[in-house]
Amino acid sequence: MAPPETAGYQFNHTMIRVKDAKESIAFYTDVIGMELMSEYHNNDAKFSLYFLAFDRSDGKDTKEDKDNAKFRREGVLELTHNHGTESDAEFKGYANGNQDPGRGFGHIAISVDDIQAACDRFESLGVRFHKKLTDGKMKNIAFILDPDGYWIEIVPKNFS
Amino acid sequence: MAPPETAGYQFNHTMIRVKDAKESIAFYTDVIGMELMSEYHNNDAKFSLYFLAFDRSDGKDTKEDKDNAKFRREGVLELTHNHGTESDAEFKGYANGNQDPGRGFGHIAISVDDIQAACDRFESLGVRFHKKLTDGKMKNIAFILDPDGYWIEIVPKNFS
Repeated sequence: MAPPETAGYQFNHTMIRVKDAKESIAFYTDVIGMELMSEYHNNDAKFSLYFLAFDRSDGKDTKEDKDNAKFRREGVLELTHNHGTESDAEFKGYANGNQDPGRGFGHIAISVDDIQAACDRFESLGVRFHKKLTDGKMKNIAFILDPDGYWIEIVPKNFS
Repeated sequence: MAPPETAGYQFNHTMIRVKDAKESIAFYTDVIGMELMSEYHNNDAKFSLYFLAFDRSDGKDTKEDKDNAKFRREGVLELTHNHGTESDAEFKGYANGNQDPGRGFGHIAISVDDIQAACDRFESLGVRFHKKLTDGKMKNIAFILDPDGYWIEIVPKNFS
């Protein structure tokens, strides 16, 4: 039983840093299918935050509804963009968490109804794969890479 | 508008590696209030996976319901434990993503109704803080640390 003091707590969001905000937002909206719910720009400290999530309102939520919901639901992805990294030749990119040094974070995962259709579409869109469905022992999951090289597991909802 | 091919996609889970599974599960259940929904042990490859989430069924979901739901909902946290790290004196611990080398992943976030009460409780439980409510400019968010040092943002649902 969860402690009663934690009633109402939600696992609201996961934050990752991205090199190029435009490229990452395009990926998470056009390829993955999330929507940009809210954004925040701090030009003094030179960073921007972007909050994305899958729309669960069948398009009924207004822009204000989405902005208000950003800390009141689960399944939100926050992208932090430090201004300038996208055009800084010295910037070496972010660690994806799966190699030393820097091992720790592993991946985010998107669950889908039809994993074969999802992976076929990712292939047709030119998405980079870390593991295709046909690779390795586990034929029922795949890993694609986002623009920064973070791993995204694609898993069927009826995984067994 | 999201591409129609992505209908039904969910941001299902976030995976992080943990040094000591028992300690991390105790933290995410007793302190954070999640429930252990499902676990998987691979003794040949020497790793275990633990899936945690906040119960949204008011306790009505059976163990089987929870296990079945692990890839069919949002807000799931997957902990990967490579057997032996908890007692390996050579193991240096995992990168939390917020320092070089290894910068990339930032944090997970828990949203709460009453952030003052939440932070008071964390203090009383001896939880380590990266940023207390009273630290820094932003007085309406806090960051606590999980047993591996991953940052967990505590944010009020009515953040403004």
